[in-house]
This record gives sequence, C-alpha cells and structure tokens, in this order.
Amino acid sequence: MTAPRPGGLSEASILAAVLPQLPSADHVEIGPGDDAAVVRLPSDRLVVTTDALVEGHDFLPGATCPRWIGRKAAVQNLADVAAMGARPLALVVALSAPAETPREVFEQISAGLAERAAVDGASIVGGDLGRADRLTLAVTAMGALGPGEAPVLRSGARPGDVLAIGTEHLGRSAAGLAVVLDGRAEVDAGGRIALEGLRTPGTADLVRHHDAPEVDLSLGWGSGRAAHAMMDLSDGLVRDGGRLAAASDVGVDLDRAALAPDVAALAPLAAELGEDPWTWVLHGAEEHAMLAAFAPDAVPAGFRPIGRILAPRAGGPAVTLDGAEISGEGFDHFA
Amino acid sequence: MTAPRPGGLSEASILAAVLPQLPSADHVEIGPGDDAAVVRLPSDRLVVTTDALVEGHDFLPGATCPRWIGRKAAVQNLADVAAMGARPLALVVALSAPAETPREVFEQISAGLAERAAVDGASIVGGDLGRADRLTLAVTAMGALGPGEAPVLRSGARPGDVLAIGTEHLGRSAAGLAVVLDGRAEVDAGGRIALEGLRTPGTADLVRHHDAPEVDLSLGWGSGRAAHAMMDLSDGLVRDGGRLAAASDVGVDLDRAALAPDVAALAPLAAELGEDPWTWVLHGAEEHAMLAAFAPDAVPAGFRPIGRILAPRAGGPAVTLDGAEISGEGFDHFA
Repeated sequence: MTAPRPGGLSEASILAAVLPQLPSADHVEIGPGDDAAVVRLPSDRLVVTTDALVEGHDFLPGATCPRWIGRKAAVQNLADVAAMGARPLALVVALSAPAETPREVFEQISAGLAERAAVDGASIVGGDLGRADRLTLAVTAMGALGPGEAPVLRSGARPGDVLAIGTEHLGRSAAGLAVVLDGRAEVDAGGRIALEGLRTPGTADLVRHHDAPEVDLSLGWGSGRAAHAMMDLSDGLVRDGGRLAAASDVGVDLDRAALAPDVAALAPLAAELGEDPWTWVLHGAEEHAMLAAFAPDAVPAGFRPIGRILAPRAGGPAVTLDGAEISGEGFDHFA
Repeated sequence: MTAPRPGGLSEASILAAVLPQLPSADHVEIGPGDDAAVVRLPSDRLVVTTDALVEGHDFLPGATCPRWIGRKAAVQNLADVAAMGARPLALVVALSAPAETPREVFEQISAGLAERAAVDGASIVGGDLGRADRLTLAVTAMGALGPGEAPVLRSGARPGDVLAIGTEHLGRSAAGLAVVLDGRAEVDAGGRIALEGLRTPGTADLVRHHDAPEVDLSLGWGSGRAAHAMMDLSDGLVRDGGRLAAASDVGVDLDRAALAPDVAALAPLAAELGEDPWTWVLHGAEEHAMLAAFAPDAVPAGFRPIGRILAPRAGGPAVTLDGAEISGEGFDHFA
C-alpha cells in the first residue's frame, strides 16, 4: 500500500482525483490503468504531435488557473493534428509536479484537458505522474486521416494562392499576454480575473483567451482539407508565414487592409498599455487558428483572406506587408 | 531569423544538432518538421503510452550521461508498448532544458533515444523543444497490434498460472542505483564510469544498467503474446506483482529458490555497501523486463518461472514469498 506522506499525496490518491475527470469513448478500447492504452483508429494513418508546458516558462502562476492550463495544453496539441487535416482522437499526458501540489490542481488540470479534448472529439487515454520542481505538462495528441486521405502539409502553397486564417480576430493572445506581463491581471484558482487600472472593455476576455485559447479547430479536418498548405498559428503570423513560405518555396505578402480591423479592435487597449497593436497582430503567438493557402476564389467558410502567396524572392524577406519589409520577429523558445 | 543569444542556442541550431540523429523508416510517411508526423500502422489498433524523466528526480547529473538518459527514456516507454503484446513503431519527445544547455546534450540525448528505438524497430517521428529550469524529457511511444490481435492485459492471470520474468538477472538496476546514491560512481559526459572504493567485479555494469537498462523487449510482441497477463517490471516485483494480482483478482506467490541466484549474484556488492540484496531483487525498480503469467508448462523461451498465481486471498497480502508476507514496498513517485 502507498502511504501519503505529510504535505504530499500518493500516486493512488492523485489518480483517484484525476481518473473521474476522464470520460472514455467508443474508439478507446483500453483506457488508463494498464501498461498502455489501445485506441481504434478509422484508418491505418496515425497523425501525432507533442508539446510541453512548463510553469514559469510557458505559463505564470497567478496569471492563469489549473483548468485553463489543461485547456491550453490540449488545444496547442489538438491544433497541430487539425492542421494536418486530421481528426484528433486521443491525448496522453505526462504530468510532473512538486510534492506539495494540492489534489485539486491535478483534478482541475485533468478536467481542463478532458473538456477541451471533448470539444474536438478526443479523449485522454493515458498518462504518467511524476515529480518535478515546477508543474510541467507534456501532452501528445494523436489523430488519424480518413481512409485514402492525404495529410495537408506546409509545403503545398503555390504562387497565386490566397493566404487565409481561421479566426475573426488576430493578436488577442498576445494582447492578453501583454496585460499579464504588465502586472495588470490576477487570476485566482477558480478562473476569476481581477484587472488593475485598465478600462478598455473586453480586456479580461483577452487574458482568458491567452490562458485558454478558444479556436475552431474543426476547420482543420473540415473545410481546411481543401487547402494547398496548412499549419496552425502558434508562433506569430510573420514567423509561421515564413515557415510556410520556406516549406513551399514561395513568398507571402500580408494585406494591411485585411488585418486593419484586428489592429483597430486592439488599439484602445494598446494605447492604455503604451504598446503597438500591429506587433500583436503580426507577431502575436499562441492563437492556434488554422493558417492556410487556398486556390484563388476557393477560400471556404470559416476562413478569411489575409494575404497572397507570391513567387519566391531570392534574398528578399519571405514575408512582407503590402510589399514592404516587416520589422520584429516571432517567438523563439531559446532566444 | 532567429539570433542565438549569448550563452544560449536558437531553436534552429538545436534542431540542426538533433535532426541528423533521427533516421527515418518506411512506415514514417511524414517525419519531424511539419505540424505533426504521419505514421502508417500495420493495423487500425494504436497502442500508446507516455512517461517523463526529470533531472534531479528521475536521474542525477554526474551519475549518468545524455546518451543514456535518451536510451532510458526510450526503453521505459517502449517497454510499456511491448508489455501490451504490441510492436513499437514511433516515439515523440518533448525536450525541455535550461537556456545554457550545450548543443551536445541535445545531440546525445537524441542519439540515445534513436539508437534504443532502432533496436526495437521504432523511429523518432516528432518532438518539441522548450525551456525549463531542469532537463526534462517526456516521451510518448506508439505501436500497433497486428491485424486481429488482442492486447495482452494485466487482468488475465488465472490461479494455477506460472509467473515468469523475461530477464536472467533481477535487481541490477536497484543495485546500480544504490552505488550511485552511496556516492560511489561518477559518470562523465562520454559514459565513462569512475568507481570509488568498490572492489566487486561488474559494478560498473550495474551502474550502466541502471542508467540505460538493456532488456529484450521483443519478448513482449514475440513469445510473450502467449501470456494470460503481462506488464513490464518498472516499480519492483512486489509492487508490480501486486498490480497484476489486483487487476486479475488473484494472489501471487514468489518462489524463493527461483530468485536465490539473482540475490547471490548481487550479494558481494550488497555486502560492500552494507545493503540487503533481497531488497534489490524484490523491490528494485526500472528493470523493464516483461513480467507475465503463463499457463503451467507453457512458459516460452526467454522467460523463466519465478512464482505461481494463486486464488485471491481476502485480507491477506497480494504478493508473498514462499507463502510468507514480504516487508518493504516498491517505488511511489509521490511518497
């Protein structure tokens, strides 16, 4: 038997908090509890991706809550599966935490993971509990292509295509992060947001969107399957656009007029914080919306045009705005 | 473009060190570099497990080397797939590290992961790089059951079965750990082991086995498929035997005479360290050998009998040694 030690929890008691948060599904043949899970796929083509969140590096204590940490860890992985044009089915989670972590934190993280996974038709099928100095979630998302379906890669964009994004509002996660980094937001364990000295309406929604991005990922395995190239917007429009450009050997020209409404929506908050809303829109990370290149006049519902795919420009910048070079850059985990 | 900062590396330069370490395979349709990998399975039955290693908790700097950390992270995940009676095919790895981590560490960890995966026919198909205060590897292993094959669960053992283990030597990882925890071993970055004040021959091999367990996992998807129940030995014979007993609703009686050679082999080192070799053999973790219950007279090559499966004993201990209660317990990550 496993005896709980003072100030800490046994693995068994943590599992007792976590497992009830994880409903199963028909395609899960063996769920948590054996050496590994068994999942029945709709085809033999597995799509898989992994991504970790570390406290203090990828999220800040006091600026988010455990349930949202779970949701964010889920969404950033599910988005990568969706961006291949594949339907997500299963997640596994390695959760490492300090010994004194309260039971509710495990419970809430699991609930957040499971509820976001359920939005996209996926289940948590397995996990691992371990010790670490800081709360760390490493999530792997798995999905499958339908029978006979090809993955939608980053490399298929062609000059003349339209660049489109699967969200009405860009830059919101970056705006929320700016509020947090300016010390203007405090989030309690239940997800209540207290703002200090900011009057712009909707600011709390931006903080929440940064902490737990809400995005329609079904565009990836839905209308996005018509794209010539697709990826999820995780490190900013300029940086990710540059990756799509490099993979497809093309250039990307962003359309200032198309992005102006996104900038205008964030301008009042940017003015309060003394920041440039164009930076949020052009370089803002962690939106996880689908970024895709479609044949002209074939941009489907759910996507909106934000630029054009050009012939590659030797020596010039891969991504421009109305033909002009863009300053600044996206997010590098190690820079 | 990503500029390396003083004392740190850009993601691009780390990837340039890592990717050449990762050979691909025929079943990998899309490897690292897009949003997600695409792997072609031999059936529609995915088997998946995840497990993390954190520096200072799961391994100690100075007591192992980056290549072995990679090997260990691979083997402990591959073992869980094998223990379902499934063939491993793919790994993904979320690697988080401090900013000042040398490029060689990423390179060597990747090489260790890939070389152990290759032993079992699997490839590294994707990953994630991030920042953390301590080196952290979260690995997910995926495999597949053959067409029409059922998974081998923990729950199928029946009274009268023989309990068998897929290794000639138990307790070696625990013995190696005891040497490390006693401060008697130092391992340099190239895997050279310096021992202090220990004369027992073979001691360095035990340290190496603890740091990078060598075990025949092909028993899992090979002859182990005949087992009524199977798991990998990760937390000690008594603790894992208890899990198998609980899942199958049976008792387990270990055979003292069958385990005596394992104990005898470790007795000289145990005497030097003032420890009890029975503790290593009965409770030693991280062997990752296949632990399985077979019909009597049906124990296949590669496995050796170490006990018997009994009818469940209400109120009594789940695992006994020649019918007697066993003191001590296995490893709890949170206790």
